[in-house]
Amino acid sequence: MAKIDKVSPLAPERFPDLPRISGVTFAAASAGVRYSGRTDVMLAVLQPGTSIAGVFTRSSTRSAPVLDCQAKLGSDPSQGAAILVNSGNSNAFTGHYGQTSVEALTSAVAEAVGVPAQRVFTASTGVIGEPLPHERIVAKIADLKAGQTDQGIEAAARAIMTTDTFPKGSCATVEIEGTVITIAGIAKGSGMIAPDMATMLVYIFTDAQIAQPDLQNLVSRLNARTFNCITVDSDTSTSDSLLACATGASGCDVAGNAAFEEALHNIMQDLAHQVVRDGEGATKFVEIRVTGAQDDREAHVHGMAIANSPLVKTAIAGEDPNWGRVVMAIGKSGATADRDLLSIWFGDTLVAENGWVSPTYREEDAAAHMKNDAISIRVDLGLGSGQATVWTCDLTHGYIDINADYRS
Amino acid sequence: MAKIDKVSPLAPERFPDLPRISGVTFAAASAGVRYSGRTDVMLAVLQPGTSIAGVFTRSSTRSAPVLDCQAKLGSDPSQGAAILVNSGNSNAFTGHYGQTSVEALTSAVAEAVGVPAQRVFTASTGVIGEPLPHERIVAKIADLKAGQTDQGIEAAARAIMTTDTFPKGSCATVEIEGTVITIAGIAKGSGMIAPDMATMLVYIFTDAQIAQPDLQNLVSRLNARTFNCITVDSDTSTSDSLLACATGASGCDVAGNAAFEEALHNIMQDLAHQVVRDGEGATKFVEIRVTGAQDDREAHVHGMAIANSPLVKTAIAGEDPNWGRVVMAIGKSGATADRDLLSIWFGDTLVAENGWVSPTYREEDAAAHMKNDAISIRVDLGLGSGQATVWTCDLTHGYIDINADYRS
Repeated sequence: MAKIDKVSPLAPERFPDLPRISGVTFAAASAGVRYSGRTDVMLAVLQPGTSIAGVFTRSSTRSAPVLDCQAKLGSDPSQGAAILVNSGNSNAFTGHYGQTSVEALTSAVAEAVGVPAQRVFTASTGVIGEPLPHERIVAKIADLKAGQTDQGIEAAARAIMTTDTFPKGSCATVEIEGTVITIAGIAKGSGMIAPDMATMLVYIFTDAQIAQPDLQNLVSRLNARTFNCITVDSDTSTSDSLLACATGASGCDVAGNAAFEEALHNIMQDLAHQVVRDGEGATKFVEIRVTGAQDDREAHVHGMAIANSPLVKTAIAGEDPNWGRVVMAIGKSGATADRDLLSIWFGDTLVAENGWVSPTYREEDAAAHMKNDAISIRVDLGLGSGQATVWTCDLTHGYIDINADYRS
Repeated sequence: MAKIDKVSPLAPERFPDLPRISGVTFAAASAGVRYSGRTDVMLAVLQPGTSIAGVFTRSSTRSAPVLDCQAKLGSDPSQGAAILVNSGNSNAFTGHYGQTSVEALTSAVAEAVGVPAQRVFTASTGVIGEPLPHERIVAKIADLKAGQTDQGIEAAARAIMTTDTFPKGSCATVEIEGTVITIAGIAKGSGMIAPDMATMLVYIFTDAQIAQPDLQNLVSRLNARTFNCITVDSDTSTSDSLLACATGASGCDVAGNAAFEEALHNIMQDLAHQVVRDGEGATKFVEIRVTGAQDDREAHVHGMAIANSPLVKTAIAGEDPNWGRVVMAIGKSGATADRDLLSIWFGDTLVAENGWVSPTYREEDAAAHMKNDAISIRVDLGLGSGQATVWTCDLTHGYIDINADYRS
């Protein structure tokens, strides 16, 4: 908890003014799950007909709430839905008690809000392996129901934070044939971040109309290019969840609409970047672009090997344009590379080519780039047309401070 | 270089008294490759008939000396051999110049020592991507030839250190049908350590007699259980090399001899442990034993996922028996696990079973174990009979200090 009072130097200036999304309301409360003096539970209520798509951690030790959500995605949307999320306790690795807690929460919300328990989705984030004191949350559900407001999304974003130093939000509007569609999303996450086919806790809401299978397909596809391309520490949470909810209130069907896809992509990428910017101990935001790989998958493997290398990440923390460590990471990735075809750039500076330092390279050029908050590393493998972009942060004393202390 | 003056708290009390190995002599010198005020090059000379086996990094960006050694392993041993190793510069990712340096060194040694260049093995360790000033080493070869002594192995161990805080050595004797066979080995390594089918720099010498193919087979097999089971930071060097040299001077053939195999295994494991004990910033030596996996390979995958998890490693640094992070690491490993069949021990304390904390668990028991220098974590997956043991160290501020500074 060492960092909770100090906002990441990479944080956006302020939380965006998220628009009201017709068909969804929010409330937050302080249930005292683990924290005191702050909100730690949020409830979103969604109108009948809302399509909900989700992507989740692929961890083999995933939490009871994740398993419960996965089982419910395809359920009948006609009677509405609700999402309940708490921070402070992840309800992960809590044996049979985990499912008991999920059932206690979903049935209490179902009764209070008047939706089937099959349409109540939950998530829990925080310490692993301790029983969730779900009765504290159940005791707040009447308040959460009474407090519902279509202005409550920022309060929801704050309630789901754990080691986050800032709440994360993003929004967009798209005009389709005269109808303005609105999308707003919130996220939490700053450590145990390497989703690997999944995400942090992310909730996205839109008044667009789109059938669940189409929304699921779109979200899964965009997830592969956004949340699955970020890493803070290579560790994958047992609880990562993303839900995208389309209330349909605009009456405008967006299936197959390119402008909607682009807007949703931008929000997912923005939230993914905010998670990296709040990476535990982060002082640099790092984009790693890999081109010229045999295929896109191999480009992603190389990119993640660079992004997860402790030696690359500590060099960036030290503002050292240490391209030798980038070569090392490519070499260990397991994906195809030819040492003598590699080219590497730090920022706009060509550092290495033809298996060695570039004859035009001057270390002061790359060193100047490393002083920035936002670092760009590009690698061309010279083999094919595969490409990928991934994002990470540096590895600093702050990460050690936070994680040698915090019980997650 | 922040750590070079401060010996790891996990270091052995002193360098062992390594025995003389008949058929091999050593010398060390100060060539000023990068360091000043210390030795940085060693030359070992091996008698005709010496069998040399090797295992090397599988990095796709491996260094010119590694490629050169790999090509020479099977060459005719009848005219003797030599091994030349420098620290301070790895001669890795140095383009065509890399091979030029290797040829300059091997031909100079061949001429001075009177062995074919095909039997001169080199290794270089240190900074990546800078041309090796091989002429400084060539200038010392006459001294290295003149200084050869069968007492020189400790000086050799010191000359190959980079960020190491102590020289690493191990030895054993085996009596086979009345003949005493002697084995001695040295190693270097403390960062960029996750060999993944390869090693650090390791040199092992014995007066046993064994044909090269038999020695190669034995070393490759033992390597899978020793150096391939350690990790400091998940990063794999471009230069990792192990050479095992059997001079045959004892006249005793050890092919297939179990006692010899056990002695060689013990030396390789001891040297591997010493590398972990000198892990950059290490304050805890950690053994992770995985049993009950579907097969040995899956047990190894789980073990390395735990050993490489920054969250597990920082928890150990903080003396926190954070078994939730062990569950997380198992979940992300990609190998098979069933959350509800897992059992986890810290030291002798059963922490978790049946998908949750054990009813007998008292946190003070596990917390007491975490105060030790040597930490033991055991996981039983409850699935089959696959097992593996891996070793690592904790992740501390010391690692950040060393690697945000040191140009490797």
